[in-house]
Amino acid sequence: MRENSARIADRAGRPIEVVAVAARDRSRDRGIDLSGLRWHDDAVTLAADPDVDVVVELIGGSEGTARQLVTNTLRNGKAVVTANKALIALHGAELSALSSAHEAPLLFEAAVAGGVPAIKLVREGLAGDRLLRVGGILNGTCNYILTEMRNTGRAFSDVLSEAKALGYAEADPTTDIDGWDAAHKLAILAALSFGRPLAFDSLHVEGISRISPADLHFAQELGYRIKLLGLAREVQDGIEAWMRPCLVPIASPIANVEGVFNALSYEGAFAGSQMIEGRGAGAGPTAIAVMADLIDLARGSRLPVWGVSTPANRVECVPRGTLTGEYYLRVTVQDQPGVIADIAIILRDCGVSLRGMVQHANDKTPNGTVPLALVTHQTDEHAMLVTIQRIAALDSVVNEPMMLRIEAG
Amino acid sequence: MRENSARIADRAGRPIEVVAVAARDRSRDRGIDLSGLRWHDDAVTLAADPDVDVVVELIGGSEGTARQLVTNTLRNGKAVVTANKALIALHGAELSALSSAHEAPLLFEAAVAGGVPAIKLVREGLAGDRLLRVGGILNGTCNYILTEMRNTGRAFSDVLSEAKALGYAEADPTTDIDGWDAAHKLAILAALSFGRPLAFDSLHVEGISRISPADLHFAQELGYRIKLLGLAREVQDGIEAWMRPCLVPIASPIANVEGVFNALSYEGAFAGSQMIEGRGAGAGPTAIAVMADLIDLARGSRLPVWGVSTPANRVECVPRGTLTGEYYLRVTVQDQPGVIADIAIILRDCGVSLRGMVQHANDKTPNGTVPLALVTHQTDEHAMLVTIQRIAALDSVVNEPMMLRIEAG
Repeated sequence: MRENSARIADRAGRPIEVVAVAARDRSRDRGIDLSGLRWHDDAVTLAADPDVDVVVELIGGSEGTARQLVTNTLRNGKAVVTANKALIALHGAELSALSSAHEAPLLFEAAVAGGVPAIKLVREGLAGDRLLRVGGILNGTCNYILTEMRNTGRAFSDVLSEAKALGYAEADPTTDIDGWDAAHKLAILAALSFGRPLAFDSLHVEGISRISPADLHFAQELGYRIKLLGLAREVQDGIEAWMRPCLVPIASPIANVEGVFNALSYEGAFAGSQMIEGRGAGAGPTAIAVMADLIDLARGSRLPVWGVSTPANRVECVPRGTLTGEYYLRVTVQDQPGVIADIAIILRDCGVSLRGMVQHANDKTPNGTVPLALVTHQTDEHAMLVTIQRIAALDSVVNEPMMLRIEAG
Repeated sequence: MRENSARIADRAGRPIEVVAVAARDRSRDRGIDLSGLRWHDDAVTLAADPDVDVVVELIGGSEGTARQLVTNTLRNGKAVVTANKALIALHGAELSALSSAHEAPLLFEAAVAGGVPAIKLVREGLAGDRLLRVGGILNGTCNYILTEMRNTGRAFSDVLSEAKALGYAEADPTTDIDGWDAAHKLAILAALSFGRPLAFDSLHVEGISRISPADLHFAQELGYRIKLLGLAREVQDGIEAWMRPCLVPIASPIANVEGVFNALSYEGAFAGSQMIEGRGAGAGPTAIAVMADLIDLARGSRLPVWGVSTPANRVECVPRGTLTGEYYLRVTVQDQPGVIADIAIILRDCGVSLRGMVQHANDKTPNGTVPLALVTHQTDEHAMLVTIQRIAALDSVVNEPMMLRIEAG
């Protein structure tokens, strides 16, 4: 904001000025001069500061101070700009109601895909379209880990340790690698796309910690890459939405989004398919997203939170079992006669039809086990869940089978 | 607009209604019911129709009716939405002045990259950033032709004929294949990115009609693809901007934008590199872009044409000779002793250093000529222009040498 202030004032039509600040530790050196700014020991009191027109909330977390600050600010009829994805994903419905009741704008471009203007794209750029699907690669840490695992053949835990050392993963990486961070972003995109917030706890979320080098090898051999992919689409009975590792065809644009990059992919009934990729995190990208919101406010933009005048009620995602698709299964088995037959019988009994199978004699471990990859035709996920439960119960099967969806990308 | 009217009203906060229309032929069946709309035989009179709040100009062409209609509408203080890239690229400076003098918004999302919200991205999404470069693949016809030439090994003229038959190229494809259509879009993007319109006739524009199957082969062998690429960036003495076929590394995201797809690629000082791809043409994508502008107007959005309060004057692009970069050269020579030496001496005398050379004995034609590909280290374009002039003058060289820039993508 300081480095670019003249340009920002020109774009905003007026200067944008920081007048007050709150943080836990007043004495910490943040590399910038905070003198001249009013200091609030309690962030929540910013909401009542009469000199403040807009509160920028960069605290994080769906509860506590962040939630209180945003709620109070909106109640006071002041605008909020936030990067807080958990807060919007979990409490967006209530905050949207507060925003409209108090005519207090609530903007959160920085909550999704960093400097990529994902929210503006969906809410404004495609406002005239009917979105059929929205999703993509929404967590740079996971995408970095999967890319590195594929490039080096190393195990998940190895690459995670390295990612921590390089600053690509946080000290406690749970919300990233378990898919929650990305799921928060997907829930926000879905709400904007369909004009109604999701009941967040109905979203199916899986992380990447169970992906093994064997999965990445098999995927490559079958013509796919593995990505932590999120998707939301309107289906007959509501909204299908999930965040989970998937196999995507190597030639698809989404398969070629590598390393820490994020990509938002969506399809409009009229505009067709589009994809945007860029850096999803970091100080620069986040600052640009926050500035875009502040400039919009300065220019007088006043959009409803979900982009629609009358948002629908919070909606449950359809149950996981009702999804249909193609699936990849990896099963580690004792290399002994009859194992394939046992598995084939289970698949047949569950009505699951196979499209392909891969097994390599060379993959046999010293203790006599061998990994086996199966790819199915279109089937429903309920049948797959029963299938893997029965396969897991076979004596000849060691470890939990791995099941991943195959998506077009 | 009719198929999606309820959704559009919800997004716009009010219904958007078509009240009047003008076209050349009143009797032509356009597949939609025009009864109930006031018909203007002369499109320009729409500007004075008291029931019209916004004029949507979809006539095309930088002069004549389109220009008169847009000018008159702005003079009457009414908003204009247009898809007319030539008009904005050539007369944007004057129209921007009219727009601000009469407080009449001028919006043109549909002028660049069809349904991809390219203009919104640059003007609003990255408003807080300092853009270092903007460009991309901005013409679907050319990208389709280059993709097909590479995939099939066929010549330009063959593929162009097929593209016409398939409706991917117009009956008169000149503005597409000669690069003008894409150059208009680039000029608009540059004006938005740098807050000042370009003097359009100072832009260097080259089309794709001289690209041969041999160029596509050599590019592939050297690790590149050939794309009609546009680029604008701020340099020491002004703005560098051009539209020309370039070699881009096969692994770069832009190299993988194929067929009729368009891609906008840009880099912000803070947000880093981003790329968005989607369909750049067609009824659906264009309609969505026009609707985005109409919804913005309905929501009360009022942005200056180039996004800045005080646009700078029209700026000349820096002369082509001052560019620096790596270059690809294809020379067709008589396969006789001393040819390579002659070429090498010219390169040395012009201060151009070679990074690589490819020639295949098998490529020799019955009349004894053979194509030769050269790749240079960083050099300035002036030196290259002198080089190819001297090489072309050699007795052993047949045809005009082909020179293409190599870009990172």
